[in-house]
Amino acid sequence: MPQLYVGNKNYSSWSMRPWVLLRQVGIPFDEVSVRFDSFEADSDFKRTVGSVNPTGTVPVLIDDDLAVWDTLAIAEYAAERWPDAQLWPAHRAQRARARSICAEMHAGFRSLRSHCPMNIEADLSTQGALIWRDQPGVRADVTRIVAMWSELLAAHASSHADGMLFGRFGIADAYFSPIVMRLTRYALPVPPEVAGYMARVEALPGVKAWVDGALAEQDFLDFEEPYRLGR
Amino acid sequence: MPQLYVGNKNYSSWSMRPWVLLRQVGIPFDEVSVRFDSFEADSDFKRTVGSVNPTGTVPVLIDDDLAVWDTLAIAEYAAERWPDAQLWPAHRAQRARARSICAEMHAGFRSLRSHCPMNIEADLSTQGALIWRDQPGVRADVTRIVAMWSELLAAHASSHADGMLFGRFGIADAYFSPIVMRLTRYALPVPPEVAGYMARVEALPGVKAWVDGALAEQDFLDFEEPYRLGR
Repeated sequence: MPQLYVGNKNYSSWSMRPWVLLRQVGIPFDEVSVRFDSFEADSDFKRTVGSVNPTGTVPVLIDDDLAVWDTLAIAEYAAERWPDAQLWPAHRAQRARARSICAEMHAGFRSLRSHCPMNIEADLSTQGALIWRDQPGVRADVTRIVAMWSELLAAHASSHADGMLFGRFGIADAYFSPIVMRLTRYALPVPPEVAGYMARVEALPGVKAWVDGALAEQDFLDFEEPYRLGR
Repeated sequence: MPQLYVGNKNYSSWSMRPWVLLRQVGIPFDEVSVRFDSFEADSDFKRTVGSVNPTGTVPVLIDDDLAVWDTLAIAEYAAERWPDAQLWPAHRAQRARARSICAEMHAGFRSLRSHCPMNIEADLSTQGALIWRDQPGVRADVTRIVAMWSELLAAHASSHADGMLFGRFGIADAYFSPIVMRLTRYALPVPPEVAGYMARVEALPGVKAWVDGALAEQDFLDFEEPYRLGR
């Protein structure tokens, strides 16, 4: 069975993407949880992950002797390996659009990512209001996300009852699920149709399972916590 | 015919990737060159690119009515659209590895990218020596690149006379071709087998055509030039 190495569920936004993707569509895998003890070279984290992935990062998918690292490569690999799960849209143009927004996510939205690190268990709404007031980069990132999602939701509203970005659930929704976590936990303002999509994502069994895991961790890592002194 | 929007060839490392990819394998396209006049919202650059791509960035591939942005999405789209070009390795495990290193490039190597911006026409070897001395992040990035390339070149040395990362030329080589430009122009130290690969990349007709275009531009953009006062 494939193994998926992930970090702390409460904090690891990159780990969340492939875990939610595989779990939501029912692809079985063994989870290997590696706590973020530190990112120093001699940490347990780096030694454990470095033994299977030369970049020393999570997530990494191990399938037989093959190590696939980085979320985009894992997503493409999974789409090929389990074609019945239809992880990308079936239509070529929609598939290209889905890949465009995932690649945009992969290298972008740096203001939102740096100012609003994922912290699933926390209520950071007060901090979010201050960030929203003070950080034009965060406002620009959210504006782009809202425009992207609104356009896709309007285009695919009638195509599938799931109400996901391309109708039915797929890689794009898994890819943006940590953004949903940030927008909700920091209570950043979004229009109703986007809030509706976010509620549907939070209700996905794969997302709920990840969130439940995050809430069960009861861990506190100060280097992941710019806005809290403790739990 | 597809259109590919690119920025200044001398500076635009992201534009270089899909341009070299398509050109090297002989896929015809119309180049739309958009000068980096500035990245302000009212610049010619942003207005021109923004009219076809909501992210306002290059490169973007236009194929009929479809806009595909971001290099990874363009690469995946091209691999599907022109399967005869065999842009990814044919073997599934090698394909997964190629995707892993391209995704790693897409979001990583930030020290090398920020300290050594691509500048094809310039000899920045003195600056490179200072950067090498002072920037441990750059040394770490180059160490990882050297390890990655050395492993792949050794694994595929006998499989194809081209001597590319996976034997024959493909997306991974196009993806790392701007890194070759940086390593050579800043004269950063690499072992002989890596220098040999870099020389083979520089000799690819697709790369030579891009470099020739860069040398012909005779442009100087001060915001792309941290190390020179003029040409």
